[in-house]
Amino acid sequence: MGLGLIGGSIALEIKKHKLAQTVMGVSRSRKNQSEALRQAAVDEVYPAIGDFLKTVDLIILATPPRTILKLIDQIQPYLAEQTLVTDVGSTKATLVAHARRYPKMNFIGGHPIAGTEQSGMQAAQLELFSGKHWILTPDEKTSRGSLLGLKRFLAPLGCRLSVMSPEAHDKTFALLSHLPNLISFALSRTVHLQKNEVDLKLAGSGFKGMTRLAMSPPEMWRDIWIENRAELLKAVRLFEAELAGFKKLIRSQNEEALLEFAKLAGV
Amino acid sequence: MGLGLIGGSIALEIKKHKLAQTVMGVSRSRKNQSEALRQAAVDEVYPAIGDFLKTVDLIILATPPRTILKLIDQIQPYLAEQTLVTDVGSTKATLVAHARRYPKMNFIGGHPIAGTEQSGMQAAQLELFSGKHWILTPDEKTSRGSLLGLKRFLAPLGCRLSVMSPEAHDKTFALLSHLPNLISFALSRTVHLQKNEVDLKLAGSGFKGMTRLAMSPPEMWRDIWIENRAELLKAVRLFEAELAGFKKLIRSQNEEALLEFAKLAGV
Repeated sequence: MGLGLIGGSIALEIKKHKLAQTVMGVSRSRKNQSEALRQAAVDEVYPAIGDFLKTVDLIILATPPRTILKLIDQIQPYLAEQTLVTDVGSTKATLVAHARRYPKMNFIGGHPIAGTEQSGMQAAQLELFSGKHWILTPDEKTSRGSLLGLKRFLAPLGCRLSVMSPEAHDKTFALLSHLPNLISFALSRTVHLQKNEVDLKLAGSGFKGMTRLAMSPPEMWRDIWIENRAELLKAVRLFEAELAGFKKLIRSQNEEALLEFAKLAGV
Repeated sequence: MGLGLIGGSIALEIKKHKLAQTVMGVSRSRKNQSEALRQAAVDEVYPAIGDFLKTVDLIILATPPRTILKLIDQIQPYLAEQTLVTDVGSTKATLVAHARRYPKMNFIGGHPIAGTEQSGMQAAQLELFSGKHWILTPDEKTSRGSLLGLKRFLAPLGCRLSVMSPEAHDKTFALLSHLPNLISFALSRTVHLQKNEVDLKLAGSGFKGMTRLAMSPPEMWRDIWIENRAELLKAVRLFEAELAGFKKLIRSQNEEALLEFAKLAGV
């Protein structure tokens, strides 16, 4: 469900490695539907949830996190007892807690660390997950058999599977992903709001590297920031303290202390 | 003077395009000296300033900014009347003002926008400046003939020459270069200080892109931050205000307003 960069790339891998008899793609976007058919990433496309869901063994929710929350509710009437549900959302604690409202739902949270600033089925590609981490976040209610099954299913994608709790995941990626991303958006805003003051065309590769993440779909990141707000805001505070440390040392022109402070950044 | 990435790459271009009869490289580093000779980037190397300087037509100061300040003082006794002096420092107002203390010195500030996180003569390369901006910052005391001469000298390097005041330069690059760089160092510190809490190996390409600049030599950036501290601290304040704006909207969970705020970042 969701034929964007991640969902589309997973579908391509499923077809390539023949991991399923039939791949059904669900997307509201006609463009992603037709592109998925053109690339033969799916056998069938559907614009919305429907009775076809009753026959599937595995559902992969591959939309922005806030939409995953809604889909978890909406797929309930269609789930067979053994249907395994996983997702690829960048936040895990709220999603897993939401799925747990449905005790019969066989849900295992997942998160492939493989995004780019591109989006949509036209950006989907084979090998996107090759060598990348893919986090699974089972909890005490997860069936061991289902976890093993999901791991085996994902193995041909070439990803490096890690297992951690939803909470550890959210703390880790608040720092390693959601904070860097938010900073990129904030830096991009800062500079673009000054475009009448400075000639943005003079920007070098360093600036472009620092604002690349802000080219990502804001809808997805808006969802991630809100879903993981507690850990993200903690990470922002840690970052603000480091920035304040730099400011203080720059203002004092303490060359040696500033060098030591900066050296630790490269550790 | 200075056989690092920038100075070394300029020397390689001078030799390739035969822009000088003799190229004399000055470096305290034996490693950079021998590497410059090995790559035939220079005809002669010197470990320090000396009488050889009296015979040169053009001096290019290619060291970190705080060292450029000192070199401007130290080369004074050796300057002939027509010796043109330029530099490649990433800050311009304080350097140009410092050079103006010597009314007879024919100095034109310069700044090629072509750094990478690599450093040293072993990283020097031809084509480093091809298609890149190179800012020249003449002021009312600059001889027009010297400016024209310097432009013609640099043209074969393939760079895009721009002229602006030292002050406009420093404001522009505080925002486009020094701020992104400082943020990269602060983010890198933030995350590395948490290395006992989170598994840094799980970082994806987004994180690596955002901390790449923090791999640059901290000595150089320390100098830049201090030299351009007034404009840099202004830029940091602008950035902090945007970050605070994001925090407020995330905390309020105002989905629509947060999306609008984020969209402006991609403008």
